Amino acid sequence: MEDLLRYFQRELPGINDFLDKEADQLSGLVRDVAKHIIGSGGKRIRPMMTLLFARAFGYGKDDYHAIACALELLHSATLLHDDYLDDAELRRGKKAAHLVFGRTETILAGDALLALANEMGARYGNSRLSWLLARGIMETAVGEIEEIAFSRNPSLDRATYMEIIIGKTARLIECACRCGAALAGATPEQEDAAGRYGLNVGIAFQLVDDALDYASPTSETGKPEGGDLKEGKVTLPLILLMEDGDEAGSEALLDALKEKSLSEAQCEDVLAQVREGRYSDKTREEAARYVEKAKACLDGLDSVEEVAVLKQAADFVLTRTK
Amino acid sequence: MEDLLRYFQRELPGINDFLDKEADQLSGLVRDVAKHIIGSGGKRIRPMMTLLFARAFGYGKDDYHAIACALELLHSATLLHDDYLDDAELRRGKKAAHLVFGRTETILAGDALLALANEMGARYGNSRLSWLLARGIMETAVGEIEEIAFSRNPSLDRATYMEIIIGKTARLIECACRCGAALAGATPEQEDAAGRYGLNVGIAFQLVDDALDYASPTSETGKPEGGDLKEGKVTLPLILLMEDGDEAGSEALLDALKEKSLSEAQCEDVLAQVREGRYSDKTREEAARYVEKAKACLDGLDSVEEVAVLKQAADFVLTRTK
Repeated sequence: MEDLLRYFQRELPGINDFLDKEADQLSGLVRDVAKHIIGSGGKRIRPMMTLLFARAFGYGKDDYHAIACALELLHSATLLHDDYLDDAELRRGKKAAHLVFGRTETILAGDALLALANEMGARYGNSRLSWLLARGIMETAVGEIEEIAFSRNPSLDRATYMEIIIGKTARLIECACRCGAALAGATPEQEDAAGRYGLNVGIAFQLVDDALDYASPTSETGKPEGGDLKEGKVTLPLILLMEDGDEAGSEALLDALKEKSLSEAQCEDVLAQVREGRYSDKTREEAARYVEKAKACLDGLDSVEEVAVLKQAADFVLTRTK
Repeated sequence: MEDLLRYFQRELPGINDFLDKEADQLSGLVRDVAKHIIGSGGKRIRPMMTLLFARAFGYGKDDYHAIACALELLHSATLLHDDYLDDAELRRGKKAAHLVFGRTETILAGDALLALANEMGARYGNSRLSWLLARGIMETAVGEIEEIAFSRNPSLDRATYMEIIIGKTARLIECACRCGAALAGATPEQEDAAGRYGLNVGIAFQLVDDALDYASPTSETGKPEGGDLKEGKVTLPLILLMEDGDEAGSEALLDALKEKSLSEAQCEDVLAQVREGRYSDKTREEAARYVEKAKACLDGLDSVEEVAVLKQAADFVLTRTK
């Protein structure tokens, strides 16, 4: 992981400075909300992916910050809208924006950040970048809507679950990778390879997230343990448990999730079963398969520093403990 | 107005068909919300402005629908978010989307429509269009946030009022006009002239809207009479009334608006004073001055059909009764 850490240490300050400067130029209330969400941390995975693929495809200029940071702002905008819509209280251990600034400010600041991201992407005179950003937002919004529909009518259907995590998480990471390739003027085939890397890393990232939800204590993640289950979300650890269990038990649990009638005791019981059956670890094993797929997408690339970092970044997804 | 009506009759079906087809390709719940807002009417002023300026600057191709309709979708997306944030019950006489589909679906469908609009604008390989759309959304979101701040701390400051109506309404109409010029490959000076026309028409449009709020019965506008006053919004008719009245009365009214303590009787009294003082008509007279400014921006243009229509469109703003 040495290359990865060194690369992030070198590049993160520039990305954070650029985000701060863009946020400073926003007006009044939008600026406050933007600075709150940008300042609440985050791993800056999306901008780093854009930079890494731009460099991997030979982009030599230093004007990559606007498009890289556009990806972070799109992500921030979706967090603002989601946290409000989910009635979330915390984001990265800090009070969620809508509880600090109010719903109207938060929704409209999210819109303004979406617009700022598009404007930043349009600065290069490269309309492929604008098209990619637009698609990324669209797919993320649709993925979130599908997640809501799924939570109202939960099932054990793995295909639907995969579609949702691809939409709500993996597509924007794919978009970040494609934007890097497009900035470098890569061929469509090269951009597709970058996109597949991002898609697979994104899936692995969300699988690990869903595994962590069942595994890690609140203090590390900043989220309550078993939060997904309590919110009625069906994710892979639960699907794996129910695939191994008896049908009657699964249907009763699905009904309880649908009707939001799961008792505290039932909830603790399910959490214990997931722990005993190691379904969180099994979900991580599934994630590991996507990480391998992601790394295979890098095969045709020159062995520059950035390609080594991209391989380590894919592996790093599996090491997350929060 | 003959040219205007003939032009709209000829072009509106194509614009509506295109909007319908784009909406049909959206997925599930997003499609339903999109079709609800698109199908609820609307004058399609923004897409028509884009088309008219594209033609006025000599654009001969027939592929203008994507960028023209992008402007309508941006407008629709802002209506979805605004109506939810305003707790509006009606939009164009129909039940507001958030009351039909729920808040989450409405907010996320708004995000998806913003993204679709950006994607449609990016189809031309002309990055100026993407930049203009991004700016248009940004300025509209900021204008709305400023309106909220103003409603919490209302004043009689005309400059602030003008800034708000420019942000929340005129900038997107300016954007529509600029997009038409940019599509036609107009010079920066030509695009600026188109933009100034749109800005002035947009200001006039909002002034007439604010005048109508004090003048027209619910059945025609689909909105309650004096709705702005009841919501605590300070608009030009009220500013004009208070500029003519005594300072103590104005301050008491501002305080009541700020504290949302305006009684039904006080409200009726203010409405009667606005009627007696013809402040709604005086607001329309102000609008007429902006219409003249808008028409002056067309002076350098060839006298093609579209320029005649643009002149009539500016005048038409003043004839609105709903």
